[in-house]
Amino acid sequence: MDKLIYLVPALGLLGLLVMIIKSRWVNKQDAGDEKMQTLANHIREGALAFLSAEYRILAIFVVLAGALLGVISMMVETTHWFIIVAFVIGAFFSALAGNIGMRIATAANVRTTQAARTSLPQALKVSFTGGTVMGLGVAGLAVFGLSMLFIFLFQFFMGGQWTVNGVEDMTVVLEALAGFSLGAESIALFARVGGGIYTKAADVGADLVGKVEAGIPEDDPRNPATIADNVGDNVGDVAGMGADLFGSYVATVLASMVLGNYVIRDMGGSITDEFNGIGPILLPLVIAGLGIVFSLFGTLLIKVSGNDAKESQVQAALNKGNWGSIILTAVACYFLIDLILPAKMSMVFFGEGTLEVTSMSVFYAVLVGLAVGGLISYFTEYYTGLGKKPVLDIVQNSATGAATNIIAGLSTGMISTFAPILLFAGAIWGAYELAGFYGVGIAASAMMATTAMQLAIDAFGPIADNAGGIAEMSELPDDVREKTDILDSVGNTTAAIGKGFAIASAALTALALFAAYVTFTGIDGINIFKADVLAALFIGGMVPVVFSALAMRSVGKAAMEMVKEVRRQFKEIPGIMEGTGKPEYGKCVDISTKAALREMMLPGAITIIAPILIGFLMGPEALGSYMAGVAVSGVLWAIFQNNAGGAWDNAKKSFEAGVMIDGEMTYKGSEAHKAAVTGDTVGDPFKDTSGPSMNILIKLTCLVGLVIAPILGEVYGTGTHGSGEDVTVVVSVDEKGEKVVEVDGEAVKEKMINKEIKVEMTGKEGDTLEAIVTSKTVENGEEVVKVDTLRGTKAEIQAQIDGMK
Amino acid sequence: MDKLIYLVPALGLLGLLVMIIKSRWVNKQDAGDEKMQTLANHIREGALAFLSAEYRILAIFVVLAGALLGVISMMVETTHWFIIVAFVIGAFFSALAGNIGMRIATAANVRTTQAARTSLPQALKVSFTGGTVMGLGVAGLAVFGLSMLFIFLFQFFMGGQWTVNGVEDMTVVLEALAGFSLGAESIALFARVGGGIYTKAADVGADLVGKVEAGIPEDDPRNPATIADNVGDNVGDVAGMGADLFGSYVATVLASMVLGNYVIRDMGGSITDEFNGIGPILLPLVIAGLGIVFSLFGTLLIKVSGNDAKESQVQAALNKGNWGSIILTAVACYFLIDLILPAKMSMVFFGEGTLEVTSMSVFYAVLVGLAVGGLISYFTEYYTGLGKKPVLDIVQNSATGAATNIIAGLSTGMISTFAPILLFAGAIWGAYELAGFYGVGIAASAMMATTAMQLAIDAFGPIADNAGGIAEMSELPDDVREKTDILDSVGNTTAAIGKGFAIASAALTALALFAAYVTFTGIDGINIFKADVLAALFIGGMVPVVFSALAMRSVGKAAMEMVKEVRRQFKEIPGIMEGTGKPEYGKCVDISTKAALREMMLPGAITIIAPILIGFLMGPEALGSYMAGVAVSGVLWAIFQNNAGGAWDNAKKSFEAGVMIDGEMTYKGSEAHKAAVTGDTVGDPFKDTSGPSMNILIKLTCLVGLVIAPILGEVYGTGTHGSGEDVTVVVSVDEKGEKVVEVDGEAVKEKMINKEIKVEMTGKEGDTLEAIVTSKTVENGEEVVKVDTLRGTKAEIQAQIDGMK
Repeated sequence: MDKLIYLVPALGLLGLLVMIIKSRWVNKQDAGDEKMQTLANHIREGALAFLSAEYRILAIFVVLAGALLGVISMMVETTHWFIIVAFVIGAFFSALAGNIGMRIATAANVRTTQAARTSLPQALKVSFTGGTVMGLGVAGLAVFGLSMLFIFLFQFFMGGQWTVNGVEDMTVVLEALAGFSLGAESIALFARVGGGIYTKAADVGADLVGKVEAGIPEDDPRNPATIADNVGDNVGDVAGMGADLFGSYVATVLASMVLGNYVIRDMGGSITDEFNGIGPILLPLVIAGLGIVFSLFGTLLIKVSGNDAKESQVQAALNKGNWGSIILTAVACYFLIDLILPAKMSMVFFGEGTLEVTSMSVFYAVLVGLAVGGLISYFTEYYTGLGKKPVLDIVQNSATGAATNIIAGLSTGMISTFAPILLFAGAIWGAYELAGFYGVGIAASAMMATTAMQLAIDAFGPIADNAGGIAEMSELPDDVREKTDILDSVGNTTAAIGKGFAIASAALTALALFAAYVTFTGIDGINIFKADVLAALFIGGMVPVVFSALAMRSVGKAAMEMVKEVRRQFKEIPGIMEGTGKPEYGKCVDISTKAALREMMLPGAITIIAPILIGFLMGPEALGSYMAGVAVSGVLWAIFQNNAGGAWDNAKKSFEAGVMIDGEMTYKGSEAHKAAVTGDTVGDPFKDTSGPSMNILIKLTCLVGLVIAPILGEVYGTGTHGSGEDVTVVVSVDEKGEKVVEVDGEAVKEKMINKEIKVEMTGKEGDTLEAIVTSKTVENGEEVVKVDTLRGTKAEIQAQIDGMK
Repeated sequence: MDKLIYLVPALGLLGLLVMIIKSRWVNKQDAGDEKMQTLANHIREGALAFLSAEYRILAIFVVLAGALLGVISMMVETTHWFIIVAFVIGAFFSALAGNIGMRIATAANVRTTQAARTSLPQALKVSFTGGTVMGLGVAGLAVFGLSMLFIFLFQFFMGGQWTVNGVEDMTVVLEALAGFSLGAESIALFARVGGGIYTKAADVGADLVGKVEAGIPEDDPRNPATIADNVGDNVGDVAGMGADLFGSYVATVLASMVLGNYVIRDMGGSITDEFNGIGPILLPLVIAGLGIVFSLFGTLLIKVSGNDAKESQVQAALNKGNWGSIILTAVACYFLIDLILPAKMSMVFFGEGTLEVTSMSVFYAVLVGLAVGGLISYFTEYYTGLGKKPVLDIVQNSATGAATNIIAGLSTGMISTFAPILLFAGAIWGAYELAGFYGVGIAASAMMATTAMQLAIDAFGPIADNAGGIAEMSELPDDVREKTDILDSVGNTTAAIGKGFAIASAALTALALFAAYVTFTGIDGINIFKADVLAALFIGGMVPVVFSALAMRSVGKAAMEMVKEVRRQFKEIPGIMEGTGKPEYGKCVDISTKAALREMMLPGAITIIAPILIGFLMGPEALGSYMAGVAVSGVLWAIFQNNAGGAWDNAKKSFEAGVMIDGEMTYKGSEAHKAAVTGDTVGDPFKDTSGPSMNILIKLTCLVGLVIAPILGEVYGTGTHGSGEDVTVVVSVDEKGEKVVEVDGEAVKEKMINKEIKVEMTGKEGDTLEAIVTSKTVENGEEVVKVDTLRGTKAEIQAQIDGMK
């Protein structure tokens, strides 16, 4: 059984293999006539142009951040320089996953259009297979990369075996592994924030000059910005979402591994199992690996039979696949946990001491995580879905003008925070009560297990959307458009649900990272009844709000640059309006890309620099509070902005089929519809730029904190205490007559049961302290326990302890 | 010097006396011709109709809440039933202050109009004197009521002298006094939230039927809702703001007194000074009392000389008065602190032990508070002021339609949170570093000291606004309107500044209450690294968002009822359109009042019930975290909504004088102006309903927490520990050979040095514990110290302790 660890990268590879097969299948499908292919090529070229521009800037970023990590690894003993390598690999894998996603999405779109000429089931098959390729690419690369790196580091630092200093050595391994997660999330910053700015800048720019000034229809190939607009859809919904979930996936598993390591610590520093003594660390990896298989099973369930299927049947098929993979995950986790975890574990619960936790409790935490994933989708669908009460309310409020439409949309977004926040709060509390913060981590891991499936469903939407656009531009028969419309409509719902899932994943990931952070720094809690810690909570709460504002403004600025370029091309390229001169699509794509990447610098820099500043200026406890502030406020603003934007969008869409207002059917072109369009325009940056960016802000903040956690522990002088407080070392005898050393009331006896002896004392120089140190070493395979009484000043005790090593 | 305490109510009375004199002066002024008086009478009648309807519902609420308080006082030993009396008095005083404010505002408006027929200086004098009456009424009643009640309770429970159990006895006094604050804040809930709904419902209702359907101009006396509309301005800006600041004022002083009591505790349970040993408790009261005098001095500085003065000169006059009173407060505090406080104090800083704090440090905390008050006004003015960059940006964005106007306004509101939050964070940290949470409380008290002045400046605005309306309706010469317009324009700026001040006061008040709460419950901090505590932080963060949404929706619902009533009157009252039938103004006022008071029930109930639920279900530590969540999120949403609303308003107003857009002067009636009107309509509920309600939500949450704090301490079994954790009692010997009892590592020796002996132990029944209890009693004027060793189960030790009393 000690070879189980190798199953994980194998499952990752399996996912990648199936991805290649499915990708080939998609590419083999008929790509339609020449006109369709030309259009599709423009979009594909634009997408690749975006990627190559992004990679250039990325390269610079990776070098800079790598250098910073190098500095950290030099300053902190336990942080190995290998973190740089892990960081680069993480960034590379995430970028690669984005590349795969963009390539398949821009291949599947036109092939879906062509398939829709034959039948709806075939069109669904092509578009969903495209989505599956994206999902498998992300999940496969994440699982393969993370597990291979872990196996390597485990071998490199620990010889593939639990060591005498197992917990400390594993901490070194996991700190290096954190680099992989940081690299992945950095790419997500570019893809999600930059991509969000990109997609809306292109959209607005194309509309303002093309539709309004030049009077040509939407998606007209003569508009130089139209390709950028179509590329934007892929950039935001495919690459952005993919990178976001890639980051969540990796960070969740990493955080759970860190927390698993502390389960082992709480159980006395080592456990005996058939997995080299790393069962609790291994579990989240194995869940992630098996999740790929279950996602694959799920995709097999997704098909519709008749050519005359409607939205509800397509949606039902997707739901069946999704729930299938979730249920499989739940069942598998039951056996997996029984297999991998010790039947009973000891965990230290803050303020409650060491409690016993059964492996079944961890399984219930899995169910909590799966429930969160399911319910958040339900809530999101309710608040943003067509025909649901909130959207109908906004429609009614459109009758009295844009102002009431906006107020209704804003209040819908605001009130929609209620249920999800209660859900998250309940999940945190529930999972913690079941199995401590390890339970929270495992809950998040279980929710993320079916990431491949979630992404497949999510990426299918923009593919179908693009397919419809190509059908329209190629002037194909109406029945083709009808079929793609059905898929597109379902895609809108899945997009909203996917956004809800992404928020939930960001929230749970942040919590797991937050818990891992506290254990990494060794602070004994985050007490907001200290003024500096409370101040940091306020600052943390403010950052998502300011970040959102900056993202929204960036859209405006970038759109203006696009407008200027389109105007220039219309003026300078001969024959462009007649269709004889070819517009320079690449230039528009390039401008949009550059503007987006430039505009995301300030919010991106705030994201990365603020936690570093807070950490070093105010200490590790304040940084933890800052992280909590960012998480709470960020989740709220994410839900608010996403749901308000989604509801406005569907309120506008409601007018396409006609809505009943004051007893009268009202359609597109009415005054009420115009008001709804205004609302949708306000909602666009909300739901496509600032809202989704919150996920990245939350996770990246916590990851940066996690990476600098060891250095903060050193700067602030303690592995177990923050903020340089005075520490009382008390020596006493417990009820059983055993001596207990208490540092600030916390018994540190168990921390001594290792060769590496450490009694942290930051009492003032000169104070006379007394410490009894129990040390356990392994000599000739036998445990030798020594008890020493040390007395003197802090320096003197420290010297004696050093001498004992 | 032990009679200094009586100075405080005397200063309160002085304020009330001057108020009466000034009120008489205003009422003696010429009220203009018959038409003007008729209009003014309608407004006055409506305002009084609102008040009487409010009082009816208030009476029910006071009875219910009083009964609840009675239950609490029966359950908790230290909570005396006198809290009910204090609650009723607090509610009555706050309502009385509102009544005074409404009466003077509705008398001063028409007299200002009449004065403007002679000269601008005279008009300023009348309107500002009206504001001064309001300010003095609020401050005078608050100071008089709070100080008289304190003197009575101090006599009643402690005989006007520091007792042997001084800290505990004073806690009983202050817990009863908390009822006064709770009563005041409850009225604020009605006035601010209900009033906010009222004013916008009347506004929208009057406009929709009057202007749009019937085609009669704004403020036309034939419109039955027009009086409700004018009443609404007074309800929101006069009564609402007054009750808000009344509540902040009282709560700040109360919280500072609680924290002052803990300063005495930290200094060993008693101090020796010339003020009956209650110097630190007395200080905030004296600062509040003297603040009234300085506000009076400030008002003397406010006058303009020439009849041709412009906005800038009027604003400069107001600024001179404001800064004059602030500087006087600063200077006086220097001497006051030197006089009242011990030169050196010991304070327990969480995690840092007992530190020495000089009285000068407390003075610096005063400067911090005054700086916050000044800077927050500056920031608010920048983000919402006419001609400043943010407003100009919104104007420019109006050119491309309502959507870009909305986006610009939203992002302005969002980004405007940056500076104020950093300011608050810096103030918390700074004041705490200077003098612990007592420093935070004193900083807040100092900022609030000039409340009378702040309110005078603030209430002057709506008086001038009403004056302008009366001038318009009475068809007075243009030069009259020009003069009132100057005052009105300045009033708009002061209104925005006043809102900023109110937010700052709510934030600092909440922090002081938060600190008082922690000490009241006796928990040893709020550690968000416990899952339930973190979950409560999330819930707390969500409540302000949902509350805002509910408030915004309530405006819509209430407005629709108003629309129906106005339509009914137009149809059923004969001759109403010809001016021969008198509209039933009172009915509209009544409907608006009832709707407003009904609609505020749900958000109001959430405000009051949520903390109670959290406290009893999740424990005192979780409730503290919930309070922090509400405070952080509430302050953010208050700033966001107020500033976005204010900026939209002034962006719209900018078109009146004309703005330069794309090189062209653009005025009222243009497409850009229409877009700006849409933005203003969205901003109306933001800045007048949901935004200002946040202040009440924040403060009331913390006050409810404070009032139930003692009961939570009992339910959760500890005065010193939260969440029902196991507690380790450790007995040990310190360096000096003295025995120390430690409960969870916290030395409780000093808690024993009182007759009232209490060792909290929530260890499991049956555990054998050991405690050494040092008790100090005073017998025949001599201190007797006894040391007892107690051993046994928790119950056994408790029984022995009980026997020692």
